[in-house]
Amino acid sequence: MSTSRLEAFSDGVLAIIITIMVLELRPPEGHVEFADLQRLTPVAISYVLSFVYLGIYWNNHHHMLHVTQRATGGILWANLHLLFWLSLVPFVSGWMGENHFAPVPTSVYGVVLLLAAIAYFILQQVIIAAEGNHSVLAAAVGSDWKGKLSPVLYLVAIPTALWYPLVACAIYAFVAIIWLVPDPRIERMVAETESPEPE
Amino acid sequence: MSTSRLEAFSDGVLAIIITIMVLELRPPEGHVEFADLQRLTPVAISYVLSFVYLGIYWNNHHHMLHVTQRATGGILWANLHLLFWLSLVPFVSGWMGENHFAPVPTSVYGVVLLLAAIAYFILQQVIIAAEGNHSVLAAAVGSDWKGKLSPVLYLVAIPTALWYPLVACAIYAFVAIIWLVPDPRIERMVAETESPEPE
Amino acid sequence: MSTSRLEAFSDGVLAIIITIMVLELRPPEGHVEFADLQRLTPVAISYVLSFVYLGIYWNNHHHMLHVTQRATGGILWANLHLLFWLSLVPFVSGWMGENHFAPVPTSVYGVVLLLAAIAYFILQQVIIAAEGNHSVLAAAVGSDWKGKLSPVLYLVAIPTALWYPLVACAIYAFVAIIWLVPDPRIERMVAETESPEPE
Amino acid sequence: MSTSRLEAFSDGVLAIIITIMVLELRPPEGHVEFADLQRLTPVAISYVLSFVYLGIYWNNHHHMLHVTQRATGGILWANLHLLFWLSLVPFVSGWMGENHFAPVPTSVYGVVLLLAAIAYFILQQVIIAAEGNHSVLAAAVGSDWKGKLSPVLYLVAIPTALWYPLVACAIYAFVAIIWLVPDPRIERMVAETESPEPE
Repeated sequence: MSTSRLEAFSDGVLAIIITIMVLELRPPEGHVEFADLQRLTPVAISYVLSFVYLGIYWNNHHHMLHVTQRATGGILWANLHLLFWLSLVPFVSGWMGENHFAPVPTSVYGVVLLLAAIAYFILQQVIIAAEGNHSVLAAAVGSDWKGKLSPVLYLVAIPTALWYPLVACAIYAFVAIIWLVPDPRIERMVAETESPEPE
Repeated sequence: MSTSRLEAFSDGVLAIIITIMVLELRPPEGHVEFADLQRLTPVAISYVLSFVYLGIYWNNHHHMLHVTQRATGGILWANLHLLFWLSLVPFVSGWMGENHFAPVPTSVYGVVLLLAAIAYFILQQVIIAAEGNHSVLAAAVGSDWKGKLSPVLYLVAIPTALWYPLVACAIYAFVAIIWLVPDPRIERMVAETESPEPE
Repeated sequence: MSTSRLEAFSDGVLAIIITIMVLELRPPEGHVEFADLQRLTPVAISYVLSFVYLGIYWNNHHHMLHVTQRATGGILWANLHLLFWLSLVPFVSGWMGENHFAPVPTSVYGVVLLLAAIAYFILQQVIIAAEGNHSVLAAAVGSDWKGKLSPVLYLVAIPTALWYPLVACAIYAFVAIIWLVPDPRIERMVAETESPEPE
Repeated sequence: MSTSRLEAFSDGVLAIIITIMVLELRPPEGHVEFADLQRLTPVAISYVLSFVYLGIYWNNHHHMLHVTQRATGGILWANLHLLFWLSLVPFVSGWMGENHFAPVPTSVYGVVLLLAAIAYFILQQVIIAAEGNHSVLAAAVGSDWKGKLSPVLYLVAIPTALWYPLVACAIYAFVAIIWLVPDPRIERMVAETESPEPE
């Protein structure tokens, strides 16, 4: 069975998740000044952060399924598991933004990011297990320092958020930037430290 | 006429149904403690249960249409009929979760599951009728003990919910697990009891 | 340019329209009896009617684009025009249902159905103009008695709704049934009356 | 990597954006007269304007990706950047409509249109850079007078809206009409003025 319908369904769910977040942006009726927009700033920042995260997930998901030959039952469920955690992003994003990055919502935001990262890792392993260690994906993943560093950073940010929520937000933003800006130098350096053979 | 657009449309509807359920998860504004998340527990449990159910339906739908050669008018309408009942899942799921598994909503949840199961059965029969008894689907369905057991369990759960709603929930969860965990031993055992010929 | 992306986009919009209607089904919080469901009856009837209408449109749209060879600029815009009127169905459906089929909402519901029917007719003509009179679509449309009868019935129902809204609803339901039940006898009879040549 | 999944995801997001706008159309409960519809007029006008804009974007996006050979990482992100600004259209559209084209919301509406136009321009340049100057897209874009005129008009409309919001709306509508009505005479005239070689 090919992965085309799996991709179509995932695209649909990710498209909806990324779009319904905008429903959180609601200025109270009758407020029509620039100051009313300013009050939305935390919600807007939270929206941008979550939009970028979902974009990164869509992007990586896209590449991962591109090199996947066929969809097994395990892959279907590992994929749904990932979509489940991503589907909670609009909820925690709205909670965090509307409450101006209060400690608990900011911490819970990190928990959802962590669980989504774990779900992504599981999906990756299930695909590699199905495709074999010599598959394109296994080679492409390589040392996967980003995939290993991100959960560690989330684990740091989650308790930090309870005292310094803005520091936690900065960590979330930093992780997003790691994924956005693919600096080949860092990648090579980390790759050399971890595995001596060339990618 | 091929089934590709039927699949695309169904994927779209299922993706939306599975995603808009998350809109039910709404902590009241200004509540930013872990305790506020705890109060959402019944809604979250209801969400997980419904997410899994819709995932199962998508999964089975995926497999069923994969072996369907062409879409007739009857198949299109039987498919829309199934989507109709599934579209009610977010409504009953939210009603049940928000009211902490009160008797009537929990019972109505079972009614919707039952009607969706019947609609799925009808769709399956319409496809087999169109494809012929020697089709791949007719062979793949086989004795279909899961498809036969599920409605019976729903029929038990629906009245039970009016007195013991949590027992009904346990039954719903049990049915979901039956579909999730494909134990080949049970499948073979049931298959042997029901039909002597090998699948 | 092929019609595949046009179909994908239309499927997406139709899938969303058909699904967000269910968001109208909202029992007030804390109401957990069967009587509370009963109070939703008009909204539910309105939902079923609109679901069937959108299903019919999706079905016909599916068939029409199936025989369309390529998408011109005119076809893209005629298609968006149709989607525009269909996008208003959830709004008028909710308005009609929530107000228990009050005269004005029921009449406005018919106006939207009429405008959607006109938009569908325009799309059909634009496609035939692009494909040529000897195209498959031109032959398939034939005398198109359903497409001609429906607007007439809507035109009857729209003023009728202001005095007898339930009669108008019956007319809407009747039109839906005409499209749902393809009685070949009636079709042949009407075809013979209108055009002597065989289809 | 082909652009098919990029198109599918973009179609999904655009379909959702264009459809959730209709959720802004909400008559207050218990209001069932034609006058209640009349009060919705500004929201409806705003909806039509935004629907047409999103239709134009979908249409142009469709054509641009049609001549794009393969999706690079840069194209994926430039595309997400465009979708981000378009995702804000329902928000500003609702804000503008519900407040009867008040100065600030009308001005902010123009800001979002401007940023979406810039994002579209960036996406176009990224694709041309990836495909090469002799690509089909580079030739098709040509002098691109519409793409150059639109931002100028938005820049005029944004401050104008603070004093004469209806004039700004007229400018927004005028830009939409420029894109909708492809007058070959004007196109040729402008093309001749700007570039002597034939397209």
